[in-house]
Order: sequence, then C-alpha cells, then structure tokens
Amino acid sequence: MTGIEYDDFIDLGYEPDEDELVCRFRFEPAEGMSAEAAASRIASESSNGTWAALQVDPDELTHLGAVAFEIEGSEAAIAYPPALFESGSMPQILSCIAGNILGMKAVDTLRLEDCEWPASIVEGFPGPQYGPAVATEKLDAGGRPVLATVPKPKVGLSTAAHVRVGEDAWRGGVDLLKDDENLTDQEFNPFEDRLTESLAARDRIAESTGERKGYLVNVTAETTAMLERVDRVAEAGGEFVMVDVITCGWAAVQTVRRRCERHGLAIHAHRAMHAAFDRLPHHGVSMRVLAQIARLCGVDHIHTGTAGLGKLENEDTPGINAWLAADCHGMTPVLPVASGGLHPGVVDRLLETLGTELIVQAGGGIHGHPDGTHAGARALRAAVEASVDGVSLERRAEDHEPLAVALEKWGSEAPR
Amino acid sequence: MTGIEYDDFIDLGYEPDEDELVCRFRFEPAEGMSAEAAASRIASESSNGTWAALQVDPDELTHLGAVAFEIEGSEAAIAYPPALFESGSMPQILSCIAGNILGMKAVDTLRLEDCEWPASIVEGFPGPQYGPAVATEKLDAGGRPVLATVPKPKVGLSTAAHVRVGEDAWRGGVDLLKDDENLTDQEFNPFEDRLTESLAARDRIAESTGERKGYLVNVTAETTAMLERVDRVAEAGGEFVMVDVITCGWAAVQTVRRRCERHGLAIHAHRAMHAAFDRLPHHGVSMRVLAQIARLCGVDHIHTGTAGLGKLENEDTPGINAWLAADCHGMTPVLPVASGGLHPGVVDRLLETLGTELIVQAGGGIHGHPDGTHAGARALRAAVEASVDGVSLERRAEDHEPLAVALEKWGSEAPR
Repeated sequence: MTGIEYDDFIDLGYEPDEDELVCRFRFEPAEGMSAEAAASRIASESSNGTWAALQVDPDELTHLGAVAFEIEGSEAAIAYPPALFESGSMPQILSCIAGNILGMKAVDTLRLEDCEWPASIVEGFPGPQYGPAVATEKLDAGGRPVLATVPKPKVGLSTAAHVRVGEDAWRGGVDLLKDDENLTDQEFNPFEDRLTESLAARDRIAESTGERKGYLVNVTAETTAMLERVDRVAEAGGEFVMVDVITCGWAAVQTVRRRCERHGLAIHAHRAMHAAFDRLPHHGVSMRVLAQIARLCGVDHIHTGTAGLGKLENEDTPGINAWLAADCHGMTPVLPVASGGLHPGVVDRLLETLGTELIVQAGGGIHGHPDGTHAGARALRAAVEASVDGVSLERRAEDHEPLAVALEKWGSEAPR
Repeated sequence: MTGIEYDDFIDLGYEPDEDELVCRFRFEPAEGMSAEAAASRIASESSNGTWAALQVDPDELTHLGAVAFEIEGSEAAIAYPPALFESGSMPQILSCIAGNILGMKAVDTLRLEDCEWPASIVEGFPGPQYGPAVATEKLDAGGRPVLATVPKPKVGLSTAAHVRVGEDAWRGGVDLLKDDENLTDQEFNPFEDRLTESLAARDRIAESTGERKGYLVNVTAETTAMLERVDRVAEAGGEFVMVDVITCGWAAVQTVRRRCERHGLAIHAHRAMHAAFDRLPHHGVSMRVLAQIARLCGVDHIHTGTAGLGKLENEDTPGINAWLAADCHGMTPVLPVASGGLHPGVVDRLLETLGTELIVQAGGGIHGHPDGTHAGARALRAAVEASVDGVSLERRAEDHEPLAVALEKWGSEAPR
C-alpha cells in the first residue's frame, strides 16, 4: 500500500516531458499558506489528489499526479500527464485545469493564464478548417483585413430592415454581415426568414460589386436546434455560421465543428460572457487560454479585442493574435476579429498594432455615420485600405467625403 | 425617424411588467461615470443599445430596450422585455444578461447577482424531472439526506478498484456512487467497463442490503458522444447520469435533458469551473444565478456548496438551496448537493444549516477513514441519521465505533 500526500505534487527540479500539458497559473495563497504549499494543492486538486491522505494499492493505480515544477512569485507552472485526459474532450480537460481548483480555500485567488499544448492533446482535436484562408477562399479580401459589420440596433430590427442595412454595408465595401449575439430566432426577425433573405441579398450585392460577400448567421441554440440551423445554412447556400462559444459551451462547439466540416462551412466564434471570468487579472481563466481552446475545437475566427481602441476592456490582444497565428503542431491558424466600439478614426493604429491578417468589425462605427450605413461602410473600407497602403487617414480623407465626415464625427479616440 | 439614446434605458419610476425578466446587478462605475449613467449603459448594451447614436424608422423596430428601474448604491435592477429572448434558449438569454456588458469599459466591475424569472421565460424550459423525489422514487432515502461518495483518488484507479471502493461505500450505507468530474472515458478506467461493472455491483449490493442504490456515471463529453453515453446508461439499466454543466455548456445540457427524459434518467449536475466567475463577490455571475439556470434547464441535483463546512469557498448556500426548493411558476425543485471536504464530524452543523432535503457527498471524508471505505461510509451514515434524529454525534459515537474513529481523526472542523 502507498500513501498519496501533498508533497507528491511538487518538484522544483522536475522537467516536464514533451507530451505533458503545461499550465501556468497566477495565484494568491490563503493566509498562512506558503506559495509551495498552495502550488502543490493546485497540482493535487487538479489531478488526482484529495484533501485526505489515502492508502492505495499501487498495482491498481495509474500515476496521474500533476507536478508543480516552477514557482516564481505569484506564478506557478504545473505539468499534467497526458493519461489524465480523455482524447478530444474539451469539457474533460477544463474540469481538470480550470475546475474545482478555482474555488479552493487554499488560494484566495487563482487564474489559469496560459497553456502549452503538447502534440498528444492537439492530435485529439480538429483545429480550424480555414482560418485566415477565408479571406481568399470564401471572400475577395486578399492582402487586406476582412471587414465585417453588425446591423444596429442589434436587436429589434425587422427582417426587411436588417437585410437592407446589410445590403448598404456590403455595397459600401464590407465583406461580412454578422448577426448580433443577442439575435437568434425571435419573432421580430425569425431565423429562417433572415437566413434566406440575407443570402439572397448577398448574391445580389456580390453580382453588382463583383466581390464575394459572406453572411455570419447566428445559429447559437440548444445543440439539436443548432445542428438543424447549420444544416439549413448549408442548404440555403451559406458559407459561414456564427456560434456564441461561451454561452453555448464547448461540448456544443465541438459538435457543431463536425457538422460544419461536412458542409464546408466556416465558423465565426463570438465570445459573449468571456469577461465573466477573464476580465480581472488575478482570477479566472485568461482570454489567451479561451482563444487556445477555441482553436483546438476548430473555430475559424474569434473575437480577441481591439488592443484598447474600442469600448471593451481587453487583455493582451497582440499576444493572443500572435498565438492564434503561430504554429502549434501543424494546427491551422485562427483569424482574429477586432470589434467593439471601432470606427474609421482608429483603424490606422489598430492595423499598426495588430497587422492586416485580421477581421475588422464595426457596428455603431458604420451605422452611426451621419450619412448612414452606406457612407459608413465606405469610410471604413477607405480607412482600412489607406492604412494598408501606408497613407494617413487625414490624407485619404482629403478626397474621400465619407471618411472625412467620419473623422469629423468621431475623431481618433476610442469610445467608452 | 427616431434616435436611440442612453437615457432611453433608465427610468427610476418604472414598474416592470410581470412578464419581464428582472436582473439584479452589482457594479462599480468607471472613473468619472455616475451610477445612473453606468446602469443605463448596462441596460443598453444588454438589450438593443450601442455606443453610437442611431436613426431608425420606428415602424421597423420592435421595442426591446431594457430599463434600469432601481439603483441603490452599487446595485441596480434592470427589467428586460420578453420579446428580447428566444423561447427556451439558455445560450441566447446569457448572451444578453451576462454577455458583453461584463467587459464594458463603462464599468470597472460588474456581477449578475440574481434573476426573477417570469412565467413567460420559465414556460420555455422543461425544469427538472425528479428533483428531491429521487430520494423515494429511485432510492430508499425518504426522510433523511441522500448520501453520495466519489472513490478517491479521484482519477487513476483501475475499473476493478473503482468498483470495489463503490461496493464498500454502498454496503456501508451510501446511496449514490458518483464519478469524479475528471473521470470520463480514459484508458485507466474506460466508460463502458466502468458503467457495466458498477451497475452489476449496484445490483448485488441492493440485493444484499435491501436498499436501492444508484450510480452517477459521468457522461460529460462532446454532445454526440454524450448522447451515446446517455443511451448506453439507459440500456445498461442505469437510473442517473452526471453532467459537468459549466465545462460542457448549457446548449449540451439542454440537449441531454431531452434525451434523459426519453429514458427516465435523472441528471446530477457537477459544476466544475463555476468558481472562475462566481467566486469574487464583485464581478462575474453568481452561483445563485447558475443554480437558477440549471433548474430551468432541468437538472435534478446540483452542487451548491457546504455553507463553509468544506474545503471550497461558497457563496450563500442556504439562500441558493431555498431558491431551488421554492415555487417558481410550478417548476419542479432541484435537490441540492453539499460536497467538497465534508467528513462525519461536520454533518450535524451541515444539516442544521441546510436541512435534510439534501445530498451529502463525502469523498476523502469516507475513504480517508483509518479503517477504510466501508467504515467511513458507516460513520457518515451514522452521523447523518443521528443528526436527523436529534442525537449528538458524540452521543452516537459512544456505541458506533466507525463514527468514534472518524471523530477522533477529523474532529469537527472544516479542512482547508
């Protein structure tokens, strides 16, 4: 018989195997507890420890203990053996590395900051189908950011008004029309009507502008209903679906990913509710980790913020976007989306900070233009193209009336 | 044409209609912003506002604006019109009331504290099938708390060892054997083997003890795999499934609820990851609201904490449990589960605080007993029955050796 004790879960000389998952946590030990004791408890509770000492026959126990191998100030790195995880199940992984440990009395606060995903875990997940390739495979936006918009007000518009706003935006130079996350299948704008009428409009505008356009229709719902909506999008000739990944959850995202592959649909991930657990810097789960999870589960685009140039608080957008673009055991990259309070006047700094492999989404920053949606879309497109070409917004505005009006209205500051 | 402005979203004289959803938030306005302006922004962003002023034809707009109708210090109450919500879609509701608002720069922190659910929303959801009735319909635990345990170490045990621990616990007086949330379908203890062998053991012990026993098998996975596991549980003669509701997400929970109804299976909800957004008192979404959501979506049991008598931090367990038991437009109640660091020595105070309509779950507090699992289970059962009968633990221990040993080992304090 063998005992399992807390100090089995810490070894500051340990070097993780390359097939282990390494998680980096920020933590504040409870009063009277050392950093070592707290880190050991984190490793224990998130793998196979418990608060009580136990006696177990070693022949009947697979070694699954995590090891805290690095502690620096309030940060700890913990390595998890691959056998702890069910292959390809994101809910199971989260139940270990972001589960009960977040509520332990042994720590006052705890935040999962970053993960280093080994091939042993990555190979269980599909990753994205398209990622940045949507710009050329499904749209005509090669060499510049993809532009997207959500009709405003975000809910309440009739289907006809919604579609008309979309037409104006597409015609003005936007590539993607996107549903708001609050818009799914309500009486004022039913899913089926909106889908078919928006796609018909998409085809008309693609014909008149000579540019392929896309519609990010929000299929978020209970899983069975969501899969039916995905099927309807494919039948109706859509190329994209939008899924609100946190509010529906990762089990459903994984299910939708499989169905979308059957149809060749790209997945646009909205992230409503992420700020419930990633906003505060000392507790919860970071947006960086959420973005990693989303890539593993196979979304093609995900919102990662505006690097401070919008109305929402963001953590390190450039760092997250760099991770989404970097190699990770051959997984396809994810195309990040900048959104939330953007307008043409901040586009130059946005692209300077985040590069051009990006979706730039503006809602109020298009439809709030004094001359309406079409002018607002033209202003955004002009701002983006000028920035890509290295021309200043002021210079471009000299011979672009909609951009001049936008800069006059909004200036170059982020809204609050 | 009509403008939508921020002050359309606040009316301190407003009385909500009875079909409106009322949400109560705690918030800290951003520097330089009044409580009224911040509350108005919360109502705006969570319904149909945006940061930019817009002009809209009123004939094409359904009124969906939320109204901040009460502000007291750092708390605001906001009423949402029912037409904003898709009937029966929890992801859609969350995208409104717990979505982008949590990340707005207009507030430094924001927490969804409580909801008052109108019949107009409740009727779209199934609610629980059984709730507290599992104690008599599926078990023989009428008149006392249901007892549950998770084998420890929670992961790593072989199937044979897992089942043997379960047998010892059932035989000692525990009603429910529960999988750990980290245990799903891994090589060291595959789902199918564990399911069939545990249910065979359940039948043997039920026969020998004359008490019905249950197995809470963890079916959590990607949705399609999860439904297959639910079907297998029913085929194999199970009566319960366990679902990790936060890590898999509400879309999947709603889907599983439908499938379980077909089979008559009760749903045991684990809540790993809840502390990522409910632990800090000033930000995120409260456990109270999560419990409400779980009831609407139709789980039968949910973990709500130990009222401070365990190893995990909890918010107001008695208040949450009271809500789960109270009438809500005729919805079946949910049976709450107290778990996390419990042992026999705290049972008297636990039941005094939370009552007897409860599942008392102990892991280390059973298997860590010096004389092993069977003695640990007997000690817990004795402690619970004594408390129900108004007999003190010390008194009962006088003629109950396992309980005496447990009290000697653990005393009457919560572990940390």
